[in-house]
Amino acid sequence: MKAAIIMGSKSDHPVVQRAEETLRSFGVEHETRIMSAHRTPGAAAEFAATAEERGIEVIIAAAGKAAHLAGVIAAGTPLPVIGIPVKSSTLDGLDSLLSMVQMPKGVPVATVAIDGAENAALLAVQMLSVKYPALRSAMKEYKARMAEEVEAADAEFQKGR
Amino acid sequence: MKAAIIMGSKSDHPVVQRAEETLRSFGVEHETRIMSAHRTPGAAAEFAATAEERGIEVIIAAAGKAAHLAGVIAAGTPLPVIGIPVKSSTLDGLDSLLSMVQMPKGVPVATVAIDGAENAALLAVQMLSVKYPALRSAMKEYKARMAEEVEAADAEFQKGR
Amino acid sequence: MKAAIIMGSKSDHPVVQRAEETLRSFGVEHETRIMSAHRTPGAAAEFAATAEERGIEVIIAAAGKAAHLAGVIAAGTPLPVIGIPVKSSTLDGLDSLLSMVQMPKGVPVATVAIDGAENAALLAVQMLSVKYPALRSAMKEYKARMAEEVEAADAEFQKGR
Amino acid sequence: MKAAIIMGSKSDHPVVQRAEETLRSFGVEHETRIMSAHRTPGAAAEFAATAEERGIEVIIAAAGKAAHLAGVIAAGTPLPVIGIPVKSSTLDGLDSLLSMVQMPKGVPVATVAIDGAENAALLAVQMLSVKYPALRSAMKEYKARMAEEVEAADAEFQKGR
Amino acid sequence: MKAAIIMGSKSDHPVVQRAEETLRSFGVEHETRIMSAHRTPGAAAEFAATAEERGIEVIIAAAGKAAHLAGVIAAGTPLPVIGIPVKSSTLDGLDSLLSMVQMPKGVPVATVAIDGAENAALLAVQMLSVKYPALRSAMKEYKARMAEEVEAADAEFQKGR
Amino acid sequence: MKAAIIMGSKSDHPVVQRAEETLRSFGVEHETRIMSAHRTPGAAAEFAATAEERGIEVIIAAAGKAAHLAGVIAAGTPLPVIGIPVKSSTLDGLDSLLSMVQMPKGVPVATVAIDGAENAALLAVQMLSVKYPALRSAMKEYKARMAEEVEAADAEFQKGR
Amino acid sequence: MKAAIIMGSKSDHPVVQRAEETLRSFGVEHETRIMSAHRTPGAAAEFAATAEERGIEVIIAAAGKAAHLAGVIAAGTPLPVIGIPVKSSTLDGLDSLLSMVQMPKGVPVATVAIDGAENAALLAVQMLSVKYPALRSAMKEYKARMAEEVEAADAEFQKGR
Amino acid sequence: MKAAIIMGSKSDHPVVQRAEETLRSFGVEHETRIMSAHRTPGAAAEFAATAEERGIEVIIAAAGKAAHLAGVIAAGTPLPVIGIPVKSSTLDGLDSLLSMVQMPKGVPVATVAIDGAENAALLAVQMLSVKYPALRSAMKEYKARMAEEVEAADAEFQKGR
Repeated sequence: MKAAIIMGSKSDHPVVQRAEETLRSFGVEHETRIMSAHRTPGAAAEFAATAEERGIEVIIAAAGKAAHLAGVIAAGTPLPVIGIPVKSSTLDGLDSLLSMVQMPKGVPVATVAIDGAENAALLAVQMLSVKYPALRSAMKEYKARMAEEVEAADAEFQKGR
Repeated sequence: MKAAIIMGSKSDHPVVQRAEETLRSFGVEHETRIMSAHRTPGAAAEFAATAEERGIEVIIAAAGKAAHLAGVIAAGTPLPVIGIPVKSSTLDGLDSLLSMVQMPKGVPVATVAIDGAENAALLAVQMLSVKYPALRSAMKEYKARMAEEVEAADAEFQKGR
Repeated sequence: MKAAIIMGSKSDHPVVQRAEETLRSFGVEHETRIMSAHRTPGAAAEFAATAEERGIEVIIAAAGKAAHLAGVIAAGTPLPVIGIPVKSSTLDGLDSLLSMVQMPKGVPVATVAIDGAENAALLAVQMLSVKYPALRSAMKEYKARMAEEVEAADAEFQKGR
Repeated sequence: MKAAIIMGSKSDHPVVQRAEETLRSFGVEHETRIMSAHRTPGAAAEFAATAEERGIEVIIAAAGKAAHLAGVIAAGTPLPVIGIPVKSSTLDGLDSLLSMVQMPKGVPVATVAIDGAENAALLAVQMLSVKYPALRSAMKEYKARMAEEVEAADAEFQKGR
Repeated sequence: MKAAIIMGSKSDHPVVQRAEETLRSFGVEHETRIMSAHRTPGAAAEFAATAEERGIEVIIAAAGKAAHLAGVIAAGTPLPVIGIPVKSSTLDGLDSLLSMVQMPKGVPVATVAIDGAENAALLAVQMLSVKYPALRSAMKEYKARMAEEVEAADAEFQKGR
Repeated sequence: MKAAIIMGSKSDHPVVQRAEETLRSFGVEHETRIMSAHRTPGAAAEFAATAEERGIEVIIAAAGKAAHLAGVIAAGTPLPVIGIPVKSSTLDGLDSLLSMVQMPKGVPVATVAIDGAENAALLAVQMLSVKYPALRSAMKEYKARMAEEVEAADAEFQKGR
Repeated sequence: MKAAIIMGSKSDHPVVQRAEETLRSFGVEHETRIMSAHRTPGAAAEFAATAEERGIEVIIAAAGKAAHLAGVIAAGTPLPVIGIPVKSSTLDGLDSLLSMVQMPKGVPVATVAIDGAENAALLAVQMLSVKYPALRSAMKEYKARMAEEVEAADAEFQKGR
Repeated sequence: MKAAIIMGSKSDHPVVQRAEETLRSFGVEHETRIMSAHRTPGAAAEFAATAEERGIEVIIAAAGKAAHLAGVIAAGTPLPVIGIPVKSSTLDGLDSLLSMVQMPKGVPVATVAIDGAENAALLAVQMLSVKYPALRSAMKEYKARMAEEVEAADAEFQKGR
């Protein structure tokens, strides 16, 4: 199983990195690419067109401002595409959110929260787990561990009183 | 392969219907349920907890206003959950969009456009196609047909001049 | 008389703390819990279902982003639930405000201002004062003291000129 | 037990009416008044100052645009005040929502959804039920009935397929 | 001629101060008061009711969040009231702007930009200049000087190239 | 005493008309002009430059979308300028509101609510009443009558129950 | 001289038509095409890549929701690209506006108002007039005529009083 | 060939500077002026009226808040005008964006992203390249270089893994 992460610019890496770490923690092989819907449209189209045949099963795209990257990739591939709207210096991320989520009929982008890189990776894992039972199990463990962590935080908080 | 669609209220069906039709056109078996995160929290939790063992592989949830339904379902299942923010009579759908997409770390909802029911279904098909090659092929055909339709519309438009 | 405060994450405590202090200043006993609508949905449902029988009379819930916590608790209890939308790193709190206040018909959340923890506690006191005359008196004193403070600030300001 | 509903203008009655009906269905006696923070400030201040001694235990205020009514009433009474932001012809209700919910420290308004009159009444019932056990029971029945209605709607929907 | 400036809290003074300086530069006598629509409603109503007879001819009110102060003052006086929406820690000032400017029919507030204290003072001067020719002349000089400053800035900028 | 009303286009007249009627009811002489900051910039500049010498004492400007008209007039006259942001077919009036109210330091526009034509006229009357005592009295009567109307509406509403 | 107009869907034609009429009134030859950034990405890329060599000198692109069309065309051509954000059924056009105007560094889209088709055409004429003096003259006449029309409307309005 | 950049205030220069550098890198001669729609309306009108005869072929205008500058210049010249909405201390640039882009029919402003100074310059180059083939070539090179930079960033990123 293999995922791909693409980001519009190197400057998106601090956000994207959290998606990479999450995928890694689930043992999901992935490549991360810098590619732009506007600056390297040819490369982006090429990437989209060949992603499936290169064995990629789900794609995560992160971009800010008029965040067309996820939509442009989704246009060129039958694979599911997850979008991370990245907050930049103006409009607090609302622009990238709307540019990603409001896709027209026919070409969906599975949009997560602004800067929601971990969730993008978790969603990728959930999509892959439709096919790979091991990932389904891992996701259940993840959820159980997450619950335990909250409960532990609560327990510790109660003690500290 | 099986999908489930849940809606917060009967009044969401005009939107949800377009998701049902799209799933049907891909031959994806599905059930549609009325269930509310707030009015039937027990039923919703039960649904989420048993969805996987009942053979459901992807869930679509549609809700308006403070649209918690998708998030609440996502909390209780390892399956991927797709959210359709439904536009209601105030705030033009912005409330339901933000309530769905801005999920906290750990529990993603794959959010599509406001009232974007077809895209929710297409995204479900893409997720299922990770496992079912026939759906992948059907998705490619869908994309090709969609392109042809636009091209035909363009051709006809040129003729009409 | 007893109140409960729940927060979605330990990181909400700097905000929640101001609610605790305010309750304390009115002598309202309370417990504070960390609990998540999405990460510990079972614990949250359990909490809501048993709050009344455990003697709790009003609940305050604080959460950020897609702030479902208050709504999810309100779904499971007949007690009045007060919501504090917490501002997080994107969208300036608008997302949590809309996620809390725009509750569908049947399950209200008494929403206060973004990060408005003192007011959430004051509202809890006002609700409890429907039953406890001592709190009513304390609330009147609070309001009188608040007025005096503003008047004192004005007087000092005039002197400083 | 007694509630009061005040509205800024006669034109708010179509919204307010749903609060009246809900209170009535719970057997909560109430008066409904037309009063304006800006056009009859004296009457509003007088109302707030005397509400408690006249036996009122909770107040609901509905207003649109720069919806100051709830805040102005809350300033003058120790009683809990619930605000209904009313949608008017511009800005889709966002103005009245923010004018009501963003109250400064010291004077909370328990804000419900835009045009959320039923929920305002339900919240009033929940507040009164802190003191009146019969209302607590009625609220539990209301919640149970609401759940049954959703389940019935679901059952009928399944049959219709 | 006399103006009054009122602010909802001492913390608004850094903004209000710029209005004071501007009034002073035009030689407009003024008093500055701390007064709150919600914390000292009686004082605010008293101030509004007596402002005219105390010789005040125009009032400036500054407040943040649910900024009711200007509207509440305007309700109680026939004098023109100018509102300065003050930006606070959430929502970037949009809440106070809408709370001030969206006043219902019958009670206007002359709203200026968020944190626009100088402009509030200039507007006050323009209102007073309807009656006081000396202020009209001073306003013309102000505008001429302002133009000269921009032209000087341009000239210096050209030199620096 | 004399006011002027200018509107960016004939299509703004249904809104502007309510300002005219209000001015008329106060006996304030006025002229109404169609003039555009963008389509007849020369005429607008000329109007602004000569308004004072032609005896005009206050100006009301109404415009929609990128509503520059009020600001452009304010740039060219020492007279107080009141802006009415007009709601057009997109963005619900938020664009015209922000274009009017967010004026830079030095050139204020006294902005009223979106489509708030009556309030613009009342504000004009309040400004003129700084000089004309008869208008001050008329404004007090207006406020008293308005209060009576609300009280009458309340009385009738109580009777109808 | 030649312009091209592209629209994302046949349903955008009622808006686009006004751009066509405006271009026609200036005698600017143009082609209008239906093409989609997401449904026919290949055709769009091909169009962009060959537009210059086919003699097109300026491109207008109209699209709604996540309006990527203008950006995607701009990515593939050195020609200036003008974007018309089209209002669709949710969010009042804010989504398409932000998706078009917030383009990242390197690939501008000259964005006009939501549904601002005439202005898109006028901007195209202004761009072409950099090269074609006849269009410059026509634009001056257009502006003069527009001023006359406003003046005539004002004159007629004055007569009707 | 010659461009002009105007800014509403010296404080906009840090943004505008990036437009100057970009123009310079394309060898486009330009002048930069400080001029205000509101503080120096005469100078701005004069500038607009004479720009064409002074050989200027495209104008860039940068302004914040109620950013009328670009619209006011566009009103007075047949030349294409590009607007840069500048982010200031409140509302995150949304006010200046809407004030620039929502121009009424007849007078377009080619609006770029908030603080998008480089893109304003690139758009100016694209407009000029309609006439000057050398700029067209330079623009193609710019796009190619930009693509190479993204590809190089991607290559380096891959190496670093």
